[in-house]
This record gives sequence, C-alpha cells and structure tokens, in this order.
Amino acid sequence: IDHHDEKAVLALLDDLHPADIAEIYGELDLDEAKYIYFLLDDDTAADVLTELPEDDKLRFLESLPSEVIAKRFIDKMDSDDAADVLGQLDSSTQQEVLSHIEDIEVAGDIADLLTYDEHTAGGIMAKELIKVRDSWNMNTCIRSMRQQAEEVDEVYYVYVVDSRDVLKGTLSLKRLLLSPEDIQIRDILNEDVISVRVDTSTDEVSNIMDKYGLVALPVVDGVGRLVGRITIDDVVDVMREEAEKDYQLASGITEDVEISDSVWIHTRARIPWLLIGLLGGVLGSRVIGGFIGILGEHPHLALFMPLIGAMGGNVGIQSSAIVVQSLASGSMGLDTNWGKLVKELTIAFLNATVLSLIMFGYNYIVDAGWPLSLTVSAAMFSVVVFASMFGTFVPLLLKRINIDPAVATGPFVTTLNDIIGMFIYLTFGALFYALLL
Amino acid sequence: IDHHDEKAVLALLDDLHPADIAEIYGELDLDEAKYIYFLLDDDTAADVLTELPEDDKLRFLESLPSEVIAKRFIDKMDSDDAADVLGQLDSSTQQEVLSHIEDIEVAGDIADLLTYDEHTAGGIMAKELIKVRDSWNMNTCIRSMRQQAEEVDEVYYVYVVDSRDVLKGTLSLKRLLLSPEDIQIRDILNEDVISVRVDTSTDEVSNIMDKYGLVALPVVDGVGRLVGRITIDDVVDVMREEAEKDYQLASGITEDVEISDSVWIHTRARIPWLLIGLLGGVLGSRVIGGFIGILGEHPHLALFMPLIGAMGGNVGIQSSAIVVQSLASGSMGLDTNWGKLVKELTIAFLNATVLSLIMFGYNYIVDAGWPLSLTVSAAMFSVVVFASMFGTFVPLLLKRINIDPAVATGPFVTTLNDIIGMFIYLTFGALFYALLL
Repeated sequence: IDHHDEKAVLALLDDLHPADIAEIYGELDLDEAKYIYFLLDDDTAADVLTELPEDDKLRFLESLPSEVIAKRFIDKMDSDDAADVLGQLDSSTQQEVLSHIEDIEVAGDIADLLTYDEHTAGGIMAKELIKVRDSWNMNTCIRSMRQQAEEVDEVYYVYVVDSRDVLKGTLSLKRLLLSPEDIQIRDILNEDVISVRVDTSTDEVSNIMDKYGLVALPVVDGVGRLVGRITIDDVVDVMREEAEKDYQLASGITEDVEISDSVWIHTRARIPWLLIGLLGGVLGSRVIGGFIGILGEHPHLALFMPLIGAMGGNVGIQSSAIVVQSLASGSMGLDTNWGKLVKELTIAFLNATVLSLIMFGYNYIVDAGWPLSLTVSAAMFSVVVFASMFGTFVPLLLKRINIDPAVATGPFVTTLNDIIGMFIYLTFGALFYALLL
Repeated sequence: IDHHDEKAVLALLDDLHPADIAEIYGELDLDEAKYIYFLLDDDTAADVLTELPEDDKLRFLESLPSEVIAKRFIDKMDSDDAADVLGQLDSSTQQEVLSHIEDIEVAGDIADLLTYDEHTAGGIMAKELIKVRDSWNMNTCIRSMRQQAEEVDEVYYVYVVDSRDVLKGTLSLKRLLLSPEDIQIRDILNEDVISVRVDTSTDEVSNIMDKYGLVALPVVDGVGRLVGRITIDDVVDVMREEAEKDYQLASGITEDVEISDSVWIHTRARIPWLLIGLLGGVLGSRVIGGFIGILGEHPHLALFMPLIGAMGGNVGIQSSAIVVQSLASGSMGLDTNWGKLVKELTIAFLNATVLSLIMFGYNYIVDAGWPLSLTVSAAMFSVVVFASMFGTFVPLLLKRINIDPAVATGPFVTTLNDIIGMFIYLTFGALFYALLL
C-alpha cells in the first residue's frame, strides 16, 4: 500500500470476501483505507462498508462528499443496509445524499425506512422482496419473479398479495419447483403466513422467528399491506445485542454500551448500580453500628465480615442468574415452584455444608478459638442457604409485579444479601461470645 | 381434555402452529400430553416433539415403546432433529428405534449423524439437501431437484457436486430463476462456496455464518465430499447457548446448566467460584488481622469494611465486563491500549469523585468524625480507581497468556479487589487515626 502498487494490492484483495476486507480495514489508517476503497469495484466497496463496525463506518463516511456516498455506496446497497448507514449521519447530510440517488423509487424506499424507530420491525426490515398477485397463474408469476429477482440478493419466500397489496400468503420455493406451470397462484399459496407489523418491537420479532424457526418474516402496515421483509441475519444481530445487554446487566451496567462509546455514556451506565451498592453499604454500616459494642470487645469478629458479605452476594447472584435466565427463555422446566424450591434448598444445603466445614477446619488450624469458629461456620451456613432462597424468589417476585427481573435482580439481591449477611453474622457473634466466654 | 372430547380438542389444536402446541404441552401432565399426541397427525406430532424442551422430550419418549417412536416420530423428522432426539436416549434404545425405521437409507443417515460430537458441525448438520451434478444441464437439474425437493423442508441453496460427490459450488435460487433452460450447470455455478468440515467446532460454524451472513452452510468430509448442510436456525440455537453460558459465567457459574439439571450438576457448577471466594475471604482476613490493633481501638472502622469491599468488586466487574465482551466480539474499537487506559481512568475518576463526595456528605451528617470520614472517602476514591484499572488489565493479561478471559476474570477480579480494598481502607484508617487523634 505504501508504494501505491495498485496491481499487487488488487491481486491480494481479489480473492477475499468483503467481510475479510472489512477486517483488514480495521488495521489501516483512514488514508490507506480510502485508497483501498477506490480500488475496489462498487459492489464490493458497498459490501465492505456494510461489514465495518459502526464507528469506523461513521468516520469513513464523514470523510467523503455526499455525492460519492450516494453513488458509490448507498446506490449499491440493500435498502435496509443503506438506511442503517444513512441513519448514522445527521439529517441534512441524509437529505443531501438522498438527493444524489438517481432512482427516485430507491431514494423513497430508503427515506421511508429512515422514519422507523430502529427498535421496531420497520427499523430492521428491507424493502427488497419478491411479490406476486394471487390472481396470476404460475407462468405470469415466474416471468415477474425473474424480473424482480435481479434486485434482490437472496430469495427465501415469494409473497402473495392481492390487488390492494394486502398480504395473502407465501409461496415457498419448494412449492414453485413442484407445481405445474398452468396452476393459479391462489390455489397453491400457503395462507398460514406469520407476519409482523412495522411497529412490532425487534425483541418480539426475534422471539417469533426463533419460536417458529423462520428465515424471513414479512412486515405489514396497519391495514395489512406488505411493506417489507426481515431476514434472519438482521435478527441474529438483534439477538447478539440482546445477549450483550444481558451480560452487561449481569455485570451491573444499565445501558447497552460499546467500548468505543464516550466517557459520559460509560459513566452514566455504571453509576446507578454503584449508587445502589453505596446505599446498601450505608444501610449495612447502620446494622454493624448496632453491634459496635461487641466489635470493640472482640475485634477479631471483623476478620470475616468481608468474607460473609461476599459469600452472600456470590450465592445470591448464582441462584438468581439461573432463574432470570429460565424466565427469559420461557423454559421453566416441568418442576412446580415447590419442586424448584426443594431443589434449590438441596443445592444450597450441600454448598453451605462444604463451605462451613472448610471454614471450621481453617479456624481450627489457625486456632481462632471456639466463639469465632462457631460464629463463622454457623453464619456461613445460614447466609448461603438464605442467600440462595432469596436469589430464587426475588426474580420470581419481580416478574410477578411486572418488573424485568434481568434489570433489577443483580443490585437488589447483592445489596440485600450483604446487609442481611452482616446481621446474621454479628447476631451469631454476639450469641456465641456471650455463651462461651 | 378431561372429558376426552376428541372433536373439541382437535378443533382447538387444528389452527395452532406446532411451536404453540409445544407450549401448551408444557402445562399438561404426561397422560394428558400423550392423549393429545395421538390425536395429532404424524407430521404435526413430530414437529411438536422437536419443539419441546429437552427434558420434556426425554420424559415423553421414555414413556413410549420404541416402535412407536420410530414410526410416529423419527420417520417424520428431518435427520438432524431425529438425531437430536435419539441422542438423548441410551444406545440400546437407539438401536431398537433405528431397527424399526423402514427406509434403510434414512436409518443409515441418522446413525451416521449420531456418531458426531454434538459440538461439531457434524453434530448439528442435517443430511437433507438438494444436490446436482456439475455435468448436468438446467433441464436435468430442474427435474432432479423437483424429485429431491419433496424430502427437504426448506430450500436455500442447491449444491453442485462432481461425480465423486466432491463439492464444487452452489447454485442460488435466484440464479435458477434467471438462467435459460439449456445452459450447463458447470457454467453458472458459483465456485466461491464457503464450507466447513464435519469436525469444525460449532462456535466456529456460528462465527463463519455470522461473518459472511449465510443462511445455510455445506459440510464436507476430510476429502471434500458433501455430507450435509447446516441451516441458520441450528446456529441460532448454538448462539443462544453461547450467550447463556457467558451470562452464567458472569454470574459465577462454571458449567452450562439448565434449571432442570440435577442437583449434583448445579452444585458442581457453583462450588468452584464459591471456593475461590472463600480463599479470597480467608486471605482478606489475614490482611485485616494485620490491623487488629487499630480495629480494637477504633471499632467504628469496621462499619464501612463491607461497603469498601463490595464497591471494589462492583467496579472491577463493570470494567472487566466491557473488556471481556469486546475481546469476545473482536471489536476492540479504534482506540489504542493507551487510549483505552486513559478513557477508563477518566470514567473511574468521575465515578470515584461522585461516590467519595456522597460518602463524605453522609459521614458529615451522621457526625462520624474527621478520621473516619476522611478514611472512608479517601479509600473509596482509591479503591474505585484501582479496581477499574485492575478490571481492565486482568482480562487483557489473561487473553495474552491464552486463558479465556470470560472464564477467569469474574472470580479473579472480585477476589483480588476485595483483598486489596481492605488493605487500602485499613491503611488509610491507621494513617488518619494516627494523624488526627
């Protein structure tokens, strides 16, 4: 690249898939990347742009005049990808780019797509699809499909509409292969078509495609007219974002953030959980304050306070993760709530026994004395059992009162377990020291 | 159902999709479920069985004789679903069921699939696919496809093989629609076909399909012969399992568990992290032990020990979650490592300032005295900044030495932050009490 050796670079790139080129691009600086771009043919360049990570895409587009964006990129893309790319630019640039697109219909489609919220079916659908009239026969249909197919990348289903564009059904490609040429479309279409409205949320779209095992889903407007289709690759992106959000929620991050987001967004996403933790810690300090006398007399009690607190938090998070996940996926298994409780209790008793025996052994070896040894082991046992019950019930309860358990369980469970753990530990401490000394 | 009113039940079920029937089934007991099953026609019954959660499926199959399983279910399923179902039974039952399948070729396909590890391409592929010879012309090809299409549910691509069954390329349905009838397949096939080997891991399969935006992927054996194909719905399942595993790892669960797994599996999955936490707590108690003198003199220091510990843990987990996720998705953004560090430091300073000011305000209001107030706020500030640095570097370091950061970061970061947090807090405590009293 440094020597601007066009032939060598092109020879290298020629065999690569656009996704691979996009990966290489990530390692280049802006000028090198631009240089490569203009060597590529238009279709490949557009595909590479689609594959780039969001922020690289934006940086790259901002460095180009809008006419180039329109002619070299937007015009060669599917309408949903084009709308995604344009959606990242500010609205005056959007207008400018759209005005440079020659085919007014294409520009109109993209402008349409830009109006939908990105978290709805409208926001992820594409306009390119193959549709036929229910009144046609197979011959007319095949002729029309050949024509339409030139504009569509992948064909999964053929959609059947009536004269007002209302979705009537689908025609699978298998059906097309197997049917005679003179049959009426009306007689072979599959009427059991599952569709979504433009304002259906992407979460629901992904659930529907997943549940019914679909690769493409037609999108209709308020009166049932076919306006677009969603393909599974768009939904896979939605699913990945969902999974990332869940992972971040489990780690105490309340907004879906990327490593490249601004400092301000990161701070805003992290502070809520920290504030809840702070509140919990302050409440905890009031609990401990109630035992300040015994702590003054027996400061060794403080040795295991962090351990008991951390253990309650860990156990609670483990139990709630399982429940939150089952609630989210809808697979609660065949056990009744009662059965789940018994099972969770058994697991908790096993873990609690192991952990408190280990602690008893440790305290025996370091010669911590009976009161402290008994306090630690008894508190450990109670805290583990209690925290796991608590971790199981909080998400079920939140679900019952219609709060998303994934959002609220983490902070709730950890914080409350921390406080209650301290109370249990110090109560046992007061008890055993009073009894045994 | 209770009145065995066949007609009414069937009328109800008739309009439902198999996935919906599977959901209803989850709310019935075994006898009711069996009753409904035998009312359904074979194809629907097989589809419903595929949609059931794993453990329900198993319970249901175990209650049926193997001849019924073979004739009513396995025979009506796609080979990959059939292999999944059979894979859950023990091997003698597998043999018995297979012996009841009439079409020896179908039985052979399923037996083949059963031999692959479920975490490889072979384990999730299906045998049903449409293939044509590269030496045929379009007419022969269409005729053969019509015949083959009857056995395949969905057609995405037509695979082209040579006389030895070696994969040569694909023929998109779009190509088929657009090409004249007398052309040779050899001249229109797309040779740039991406395929995987039977022993490719499912993770890699899912990465490849995702990266290149594929809906179906051919699977070849060691010498390049076409043996099956993977469709995107199988991969979506793999992706969901991956995401669940990551979520569980973030919650301290080391094996991929379902709520319906046995008590023993649950205990085994949870205890490792608890033991690490225990070790951390014990080490923490040694650290606190070093300050036992000052704790005896000033027991109020103990009030905020759990708060400081929890805060270090929370901040560390937040920082590491972002890094772990970026490492996993490969999108580390355009910042250099140095840039990331500066950014993370800025976020940490902001959070640390807010949190320590709040604590200072609180301690001022409750009149905690200068030494304690200063200790808590200074320790809070240092712990938040330190924990977020630590949370950023541990995953990067683990990645460098080839340990999966997702597995090891959680326990590592929380435990070490807990210990170091205690040390910082008590050191500040010793300092401020010595200076100010």
